[in-house]
Amino acid sequence: MGRVVHKYGGSSVADADGIKRVAQRIVATKKAGNDVVVVISAMGDTTDELMDLAQQVSPLPPPRELDMLLTSGERISAALLAMAIANLGYEARSFTGSQAGVITTSAHGNARIIDITPGRIEESLGEGHIAIVAGFQGVAQDTKDITTMGRGASDTTAVALAAALEADYCEIYTDVDGIFTADPRIVPAAQQIPKISYEEMLEMAACGAKVLHLRCVEYARRYNVPVHVRSSFSQKEGTWVVDAKELDQTMEQAIISGVVQDTKEAKITVVGVPDKPGEAARIFETVAGADTNIDMIVQNVSAVATNRTDISFTLPRADGARAMSALARMKDEVGYEQLLYDDQIGKVSVVGVGMRSHPGVSAKFFSALADAGVNIEMISTSEIRISVVVDENLVNAAVTAAHTAFDLDDEHTQAVVYGGTGR
Amino acid sequence: MGRVVHKYGGSSVADADGIKRVAQRIVATKKAGNDVVVVISAMGDTTDELMDLAQQVSPLPPPRELDMLLTSGERISAALLAMAIANLGYEARSFTGSQAGVITTSAHGNARIIDITPGRIEESLGEGHIAIVAGFQGVAQDTKDITTMGRGASDTTAVALAAALEADYCEIYTDVDGIFTADPRIVPAAQQIPKISYEEMLEMAACGAKVLHLRCVEYARRYNVPVHVRSSFSQKEGTWVVDAKELDQTMEQAIISGVVQDTKEAKITVVGVPDKPGEAARIFETVAGADTNIDMIVQNVSAVATNRTDISFTLPRADGARAMSALARMKDEVGYEQLLYDDQIGKVSVVGVGMRSHPGVSAKFFSALADAGVNIEMISTSEIRISVVVDENLVNAAVTAAHTAFDLDDEHTQAVVYGGTGR
Repeated sequence: MGRVVHKYGGSSVADADGIKRVAQRIVATKKAGNDVVVVISAMGDTTDELMDLAQQVSPLPPPRELDMLLTSGERISAALLAMAIANLGYEARSFTGSQAGVITTSAHGNARIIDITPGRIEESLGEGHIAIVAGFQGVAQDTKDITTMGRGASDTTAVALAAALEADYCEIYTDVDGIFTADPRIVPAAQQIPKISYEEMLEMAACGAKVLHLRCVEYARRYNVPVHVRSSFSQKEGTWVVDAKELDQTMEQAIISGVVQDTKEAKITVVGVPDKPGEAARIFETVAGADTNIDMIVQNVSAVATNRTDISFTLPRADGARAMSALARMKDEVGYEQLLYDDQIGKVSVVGVGMRSHPGVSAKFFSALADAGVNIEMISTSEIRISVVVDENLVNAAVTAAHTAFDLDDEHTQAVVYGGTGR
Repeated sequence: MGRVVHKYGGSSVADADGIKRVAQRIVATKKAGNDVVVVISAMGDTTDELMDLAQQVSPLPPPRELDMLLTSGERISAALLAMAIANLGYEARSFTGSQAGVITTSAHGNARIIDITPGRIEESLGEGHIAIVAGFQGVAQDTKDITTMGRGASDTTAVALAAALEADYCEIYTDVDGIFTADPRIVPAAQQIPKISYEEMLEMAACGAKVLHLRCVEYARRYNVPVHVRSSFSQKEGTWVVDAKELDQTMEQAIISGVVQDTKEAKITVVGVPDKPGEAARIFETVAGADTNIDMIVQNVSAVATNRTDISFTLPRADGARAMSALARMKDEVGYEQLLYDDQIGKVSVVGVGMRSHPGVSAKFFSALADAGVNIEMISTSEIRISVVVDENLVNAAVTAAHTAFDLDDEHTQAVVYGGTGR
């Protein structure tokens, strides 16, 4: 008998009809002979409505109480889903994150999973029930308070539960068909990826892809849980995120799996830093102390004449002001000449395990960008990813150029779009 | 330092403004130097709205899941109230029934309190917090499932918590000013009772008074918790429900404390029951087996000629059909002649510890009814209560007559109503 974990987001259960549709899909999976565990988000806009209520009584709600309030949303949808399943003739039990054994840190609003001890879930499955777990929540290990877990939490919980329950795989149901070779809204010729490796998905998530959260993919990779990302509004196969070993070796390995962009970053340049040991360290300690996440770093070779160098780095725009303040405060101490801030940038990345075994990927990428008139401001690479920082207004052109250059365009779409037989 | 438990119902916290008003009252109590624990119901119509959602996904929701769903309502109001209190500068913590240590049976929708172990509440009070407990809910001792506790549950929880925490008293905030000598909608001259004993309140609750639930009063009596029933919309003193010893002995003890009516009962008469040993027992076993609550019983002396007797009893109208079916099925076995059903009845009761020491109360009561043209169908008494069953259409006349006969009318109101100086 198989064992499967499903996860459904708020848009899948926006109303009573949505709940009933999801119940039917779950029951079909159970009927096929599987143990089924479901992680569910709050219905539609419930979380926003509860936040709104909170704002009405207090402009600065205490974090512990905000978590007590918000977790009601998932509790409601979990109970309703269990009822809908019972109505179809199958037994279901709903569980809060706490009851499901989701143990977390006590950082309210952004708690991390410490462990999952799903004893009651195992018991429920053993009795033949379908288990429904309220997503987005757990219980703090030290205080025993209810916690909510920040962005991507329900996806991460679903994968973590799948790992703890030794499930065969985890299905993340969302409102897109799967992971695409590029954002279809930018590149109409983008194609759905049938299978992608954990490492590639990690890079794509880190570089701007929004469908699966980084934490979720990291958990899947660590515990080797196959993840199937698919649409809750159709029966189509989605994208499987699996161990690289599972990728089809017989087929010609595509060099690049996909192109992603991130338009939420800003670039800070510290101009004229004295070229002395420790200066760069002091700069990055300062920025880290301001609780920001630095992404790409570029340090130019120091100019011989001046013995000074420029250091540029990128970070989330939301952290920009904070980092600038922190750096401005230590101007005299470091002795740099100037601070520049640019939030009109975008980061474009090509990702693919194939680039390990294929030389010339950078060359092809930079060449395609040049042909499209896109200037490269910064470059950063990993074994399976190449990222460039470009002018924000040229991001879409850069993505499109790279997608075509690496033969990712759907020829059929190309023919339709351009009225020809493809390039 | 005093220790007080407050309970607020749904109408007191119908919206954000209601929550903020309640928060201010709680903070005023805390400021006066008390430990404060609050039991709170769901906001306004929340419970009904959740029931409605449940009905949309399933016409027969499983009881466990219904409890998981409905308890979200109290969780939301408890968290919001804690936020509102924090906004006034005082620390508050909200707790589910489970977290507060409310241990119950596993009868979903109608669970009973087995025990209260409020360790986390004590801890919270010890840290100077105001503790908010979600009402209407607990955790089942055996299954550890969340349970809801049926009618009057939040009042009972508040009193039970007050007992477990050894609080000085429990204040039940509601939408009436207190307990009255009669329903003011029937008797405009009804007066608010300043103090009443547990036994009298028990009788009044059992005989139709709706402000405090029977279970709540029984708990208060058993653990000697003074209960103050008052309005959440004013600062007026309400009615104190206390041990009979606390009643003011120096004042002339009113013979009757109040008149109550119950118009939700029906009368069943089993006509012509053979006067043999065991027949009556068989009848009541049958009715009890149909899971009904019998109230008053009257058995006529058997007619010498026929050796048959008529047995009448009253029960809640909701149980009427069930009892009639059960009795009809055993007609041959018992051998009675006929079954009569009458739901056009009402029960009127006069309650007062004073009747122990004053003879002639029955005579005065029956005489007042006769003068008002009200025929008595059945009579039932306890040490401190006399109840009569009358035609439902004459209930109001009976209540009014008894109220006046026992000098309970507010003379001022009487003067205003009748334009004279009172009777």
